[in-house]
Amino acid sequence: MPERKKAGVLGATGSVGQKFILLLADHPEFELYRLGASERSAGKPYVSAVKWRQTATIPSVARNIIVSPCASGEFQECDVVFSGLDADVAGDIEKDFFENGLAVISNAKNYRRAPTVPLVVPLINSSHLDVIARRLQAARAQNQGKHGFIICNSNCSTAGLVVPLGVLINKFGDISAVTVTTMQAISGGGFSPGVPGFDILDNVVPYISGEEEKLEWETKKILGSVGDDDSFTLKSGMAVSAQCNRVAVTDGHLECVSIKFASEIKPTVEEVKAALREYKCEAQILKCYSAPKQCIYVLEEEDRPQPRLDRDRDNGYAVSVGRIREDPVFDFKFLVLSHNTVIGAAGAGILIAETLLGRGLL
Amino acid sequence: MPERKKAGVLGATGSVGQKFILLLADHPEFELYRLGASERSAGKPYVSAVKWRQTATIPSVARNIIVSPCASGEFQECDVVFSGLDADVAGDIEKDFFENGLAVISNAKNYRRAPTVPLVVPLINSSHLDVIARRLQAARAQNQGKHGFIICNSNCSTAGLVVPLGVLINKFGDISAVTVTTMQAISGGGFSPGVPGFDILDNVVPYISGEEEKLEWETKKILGSVGDDDSFTLKSGMAVSAQCNRVAVTDGHLECVSIKFASEIKPTVEEVKAALREYKCEAQILKCYSAPKQCIYVLEEEDRPQPRLDRDRDNGYAVSVGRIREDPVFDFKFLVLSHNTVIGAAGAGILIAETLLGRGLL
Amino acid sequence: MPERKKAGVLGATGSVGQKFILLLADHPEFELYRLGASERSAGKPYVSAVKWRQTATIPSVARNIIVSPCASGEFQECDVVFSGLDADVAGDIEKDFFENGLAVISNAKNYRRAPTVPLVVPLINSSHLDVIARRLQAARAQNQGKHGFIICNSNCSTAGLVVPLGVLINKFGDISAVTVTTMQAISGGGFSPGVPGFDILDNVVPYISGEEEKLEWETKKILGSVGDDDSFTLKSGMAVSAQCNRVAVTDGHLECVSIKFASEIKPTVEEVKAALREYKCEAQILKCYSAPKQCIYVLEEEDRPQPRLDRDRDNGYAVSVGRIREDPVFDFKFLVLSHNTVIGAAGAGILIAETLLGRGLL
Amino acid sequence: MPERKKAGVLGATGSVGQKFILLLADHPEFELYRLGASERSAGKPYVSAVKWRQTATIPSVARNIIVSPCASGEFQECDVVFSGLDADVAGDIEKDFFENGLAVISNAKNYRRAPTVPLVVPLINSSHLDVIARRLQAARAQNQGKHGFIICNSNCSTAGLVVPLGVLINKFGDISAVTVTTMQAISGGGFSPGVPGFDILDNVVPYISGEEEKLEWETKKILGSVGDDDSFTLKSGMAVSAQCNRVAVTDGHLECVSIKFASEIKPTVEEVKAALREYKCEAQILKCYSAPKQCIYVLEEEDRPQPRLDRDRDNGYAVSVGRIREDPVFDFKFLVLSHNTVIGAAGAGILIAETLLGRGLL
Repeated sequence: MPERKKAGVLGATGSVGQKFILLLADHPEFELYRLGASERSAGKPYVSAVKWRQTATIPSVARNIIVSPCASGEFQECDVVFSGLDADVAGDIEKDFFENGLAVISNAKNYRRAPTVPLVVPLINSSHLDVIARRLQAARAQNQGKHGFIICNSNCSTAGLVVPLGVLINKFGDISAVTVTTMQAISGGGFSPGVPGFDILDNVVPYISGEEEKLEWETKKILGSVGDDDSFTLKSGMAVSAQCNRVAVTDGHLECVSIKFASEIKPTVEEVKAALREYKCEAQILKCYSAPKQCIYVLEEEDRPQPRLDRDRDNGYAVSVGRIREDPVFDFKFLVLSHNTVIGAAGAGILIAETLLGRGLL
Repeated sequence: MPERKKAGVLGATGSVGQKFILLLADHPEFELYRLGASERSAGKPYVSAVKWRQTATIPSVARNIIVSPCASGEFQECDVVFSGLDADVAGDIEKDFFENGLAVISNAKNYRRAPTVPLVVPLINSSHLDVIARRLQAARAQNQGKHGFIICNSNCSTAGLVVPLGVLINKFGDISAVTVTTMQAISGGGFSPGVPGFDILDNVVPYISGEEEKLEWETKKILGSVGDDDSFTLKSGMAVSAQCNRVAVTDGHLECVSIKFASEIKPTVEEVKAALREYKCEAQILKCYSAPKQCIYVLEEEDRPQPRLDRDRDNGYAVSVGRIREDPVFDFKFLVLSHNTVIGAAGAGILIAETLLGRGLL
Repeated sequence: MPERKKAGVLGATGSVGQKFILLLADHPEFELYRLGASERSAGKPYVSAVKWRQTATIPSVARNIIVSPCASGEFQECDVVFSGLDADVAGDIEKDFFENGLAVISNAKNYRRAPTVPLVVPLINSSHLDVIARRLQAARAQNQGKHGFIICNSNCSTAGLVVPLGVLINKFGDISAVTVTTMQAISGGGFSPGVPGFDILDNVVPYISGEEEKLEWETKKILGSVGDDDSFTLKSGMAVSAQCNRVAVTDGHLECVSIKFASEIKPTVEEVKAALREYKCEAQILKCYSAPKQCIYVLEEEDRPQPRLDRDRDNGYAVSVGRIREDPVFDFKFLVLSHNTVIGAAGAGILIAETLLGRGLL
Repeated sequence: MPERKKAGVLGATGSVGQKFILLLADHPEFELYRLGASERSAGKPYVSAVKWRQTATIPSVARNIIVSPCASGEFQECDVVFSGLDADVAGDIEKDFFENGLAVISNAKNYRRAPTVPLVVPLINSSHLDVIARRLQAARAQNQGKHGFIICNSNCSTAGLVVPLGVLINKFGDISAVTVTTMQAISGGGFSPGVPGFDILDNVVPYISGEEEKLEWETKKILGSVGDDDSFTLKSGMAVSAQCNRVAVTDGHLECVSIKFASEIKPTVEEVKAALREYKCEAQILKCYSAPKQCIYVLEEEDRPQPRLDRDRDNGYAVSVGRIREDPVFDFKFLVLSHNTVIGAAGAGILIAETLLGRGLL
């Protein structure tokens, strides 16, 4: 076995950090090497610092790692750093890491809109990583030593939607309108305290702060293009309208989508299904360790996908699409389900790192 | 107190029937007079025949009524008969009642599409009852004696949607497109067994058999017009697309709606809100006993309406609309919440009867 | 109508305070007069200060009351003050109120164990209020002017249990052992944030901090006696063991109870049922406004009581007991259900006040 | 790899049958060979006959097996037959199989009380399988050819309880009293329809038909002894009282237990914990494929075990015990959690078969 890359995790005691640790614990290519958390936790063995809330038990490899403060000096040996930091602290910390030559893959929202930062859902726009590749090549050419960068994964509700949209645009041309209503799991709200039980039991909360804006904007960046100057251009001519709801589900975001193609020549339902089924993402082609067997599962049952039954397909790295049918208002309507804490958060970071590694960039 | 009208309930042991009984138990204008159920229950006191599943206890007035078979001969003394029958038996039974001179108000779907049967959501299209009024006048003019009729209330998911749509069309002109995603309560699925617990816990079921078709079609009949020959014409030029989901909520259907007006001249958000707030339905004007104080509550909180907090406004007879805002794809998007077993089912029947009574038609 | 008594509410923006306000809003004997909350809220109209989370809307009478700081000087005109304060501040504030001559009825735990403070579940041990009566008489005899006091209502999980226990002890003699397992609603955990949704969905949390100790100890004080010196003596010879769980229920605590009588002569199941059914509490005898019609509902259905179906009996002021049967280990086992935010919290305070008023003590 | 044993599954389309198929799909020692279901399903490929409701997808090995009728003639090649049949048909079918020489391991209740049928929770009383071993030896000695037998696994709520009880009795002597209150998952109620959603949402159902009797009786048979005539003797001197509740949990039965030892000399809490931690079951010693790594996990956190967080320990084959503490009424109280569809149902059958195989009896 070749030596594994050293991985750090920032925000290691939080909900996203815990998931990063689970996904890295037995990883053949990454070694859990540094765990960073707040001053309150720093200096303690991880097992004492964390209030562990996962269904799997704390990986033994993580238990006794002494938690570090989130300072770039502590992570210099890391080949890659995964950030599960909260937005209120991620900005400064990730900047410190990036400026000090570290490779940061972040789940925080802070730099998603930065013009030079790729916003990547690895199942669909890993081509945006080309920007990083070019920068690293330039830096190597100039013998600059370590060259830091930040790559952001998307908001959890964006991650599922863009996969079928991207495939369909590539296959059938531009989409001019997208209307999406989400039914999102409470794990997306974090743990402490996250969504109050009294709010969600026997209820739906039809509002998630900032979520609709993220979903509408991020979709356009992810499906947009890269300019000659390596900056990102938003997808134009595509109107996106989102309505976001929190429902009583532990994991898995389900989305009801309607789309209208720009062209007057429309594919058939069967052509849409075939395009989605045939799609392969770069991580599959590179045979990345966590890549889903099937990127998009097209379900034929009339009542699927369902969060509890379908969220764990390919360990949460696949997206499920169902009920593809014609739409009386637009062209097509369908359902998308994705696992919000895997492909919608920590798992996306892992798959981005695996893709970088598969390309020889880590 | 004037003498109360004699009311019968068909399907009295089922979930809708139970709700009819609750709503009629202390009613100042209707007297619970006959209860009809299947042969298995007929002949027993109601309390022995029913598996009561309401949060309120069985009304004492109903406990000892001997259940009748669902035959029109048994209900001849009734001034009005409310039908909570299942669709598999409602067709024949309601026909028998109607042909034998009885006034039937039905929650079943069987006659909703019949060209001469009014499909009425009493908060918005009680004007469709004019057809019944004219028929009764003609029958009286010809001394025909008792004149039976059937009036249907809508499907539960339709009942909430059409109220704001109807108000907005009346105020601002035609709507050309409606996209709606529903999150529906499980009480709409009945009791025995209804939605299985294992299906709905930690889950969403994104399919309800026949529901999307009902929602799309009924909306057009309800918002349509009455022709010179007293037949109903579907609303034309209005595309409706529905996606229906079952969520883990006991009562209350929440719907995410996007609409596009036909005219290029659009109202403002504030004008939309004002129109909804100002609207009064006929039942309010007639001061019907169950009429809501406010037909449409326009909520300003960013996270409302919510099923558990808002479903019981005005005893479930009002509709709540919230988060009215501009839509990047259409003109406006908003939320509608309605109580599926009150204004979406039994309560609609009661309010139709009260409106008829207020008009002097019962 | 005689003039109503002026009522104050402390902790008015919290979950218990909101419930007090709902219960007092249309009360014929109490007038909502002062609302106290933290400095952050003081000076604002109540409607602006509160994050209202009840299913009923904010009572109009409360909306525009300007919130006061929780200082006794602000409440001098109040005939009674209901405290829904959190335990971390209730100690000092309630002491200030009591020492300055105010009648305080508290839902906080701080003074429940104080030797001179009555701990009262109004359905079963209103006789403990005699202590207050004697103190007030003595104070009047000495022309002392206003005489302050504190009365505590019990913990929510205690409130249901002690009612049948007290009735059975009075009727059949001492109980030597009680084993109780609770399944408690999340509303008991407060709102902000209360029980996290991610903890309780598809889950049971088998621990509530301090709850088992409260349930075991309070039961003995409530069912204990009053000494000659007006101090309270714990019930002796009765071992109580509690196991407390939080379940995914919004309102209503359900408890599985096993009891053993001290005497070798045991009542029959039917005698136990009859004793519970026949019991009347003082509030019923005094015809208090909120007194339940029936203090204990003995249910005969094999699967009742259930939280959702039975918690609202008599507006949440009654207790439901079901499945009374012989126990292979002790003498009897049965279920008790009580509404944790009504008779288990704010409603208990109201009923204590009504009882005091009925006795002429307010 | 040695040749795998041929396994049949009866009731293959039901909830327990589906679980058997999942557990056998990749099993190194058993080959999924025959699937039996009702006449309605017989003749169809399994994938067409089943309404699959598991979170994992249908194993490919099962998809195209043609479903057989449940007749012993169809299963003669099977080395072992797992029965997930419903009780209303299990009696006759299992008798047919057993009498025709087949080895039947049944999840049905029909033969659990039969004097010659072992009732086995493989984590604690696999010694009861000795009876089968002796019978098989006798049959071989007499060259009787195939010798059929039935072994039953326990009811799901019994499976968790008896494990710690059995360990403690073996270590510290008899237990004279057990009081247990269960909070059981809805998956135990089957799928079609199982527990209605409207019953369990925002609710607890404090009754499961026949469950308390099973839990009280089966515990005594499982912890009882085998007589000289190979019949089973119920544990004497141990009173057991159960109260069984259904809660809104998908999987995992949580039980609150109080116990009293017969002896006056009591172990300490630490001794109890140590005994439970040290225990190893026969399946562990035989290194059975599905045996848990740890038979009983003793949790030290104050709020564990919890169904969602702990039910999947060792793939659902382990039992979790927590909150072991002294009891004011008896000696000790604690929590037990077990996965009701694994160690409480299908998994128990698999582990029994693996134990038989490990002993050379299949």
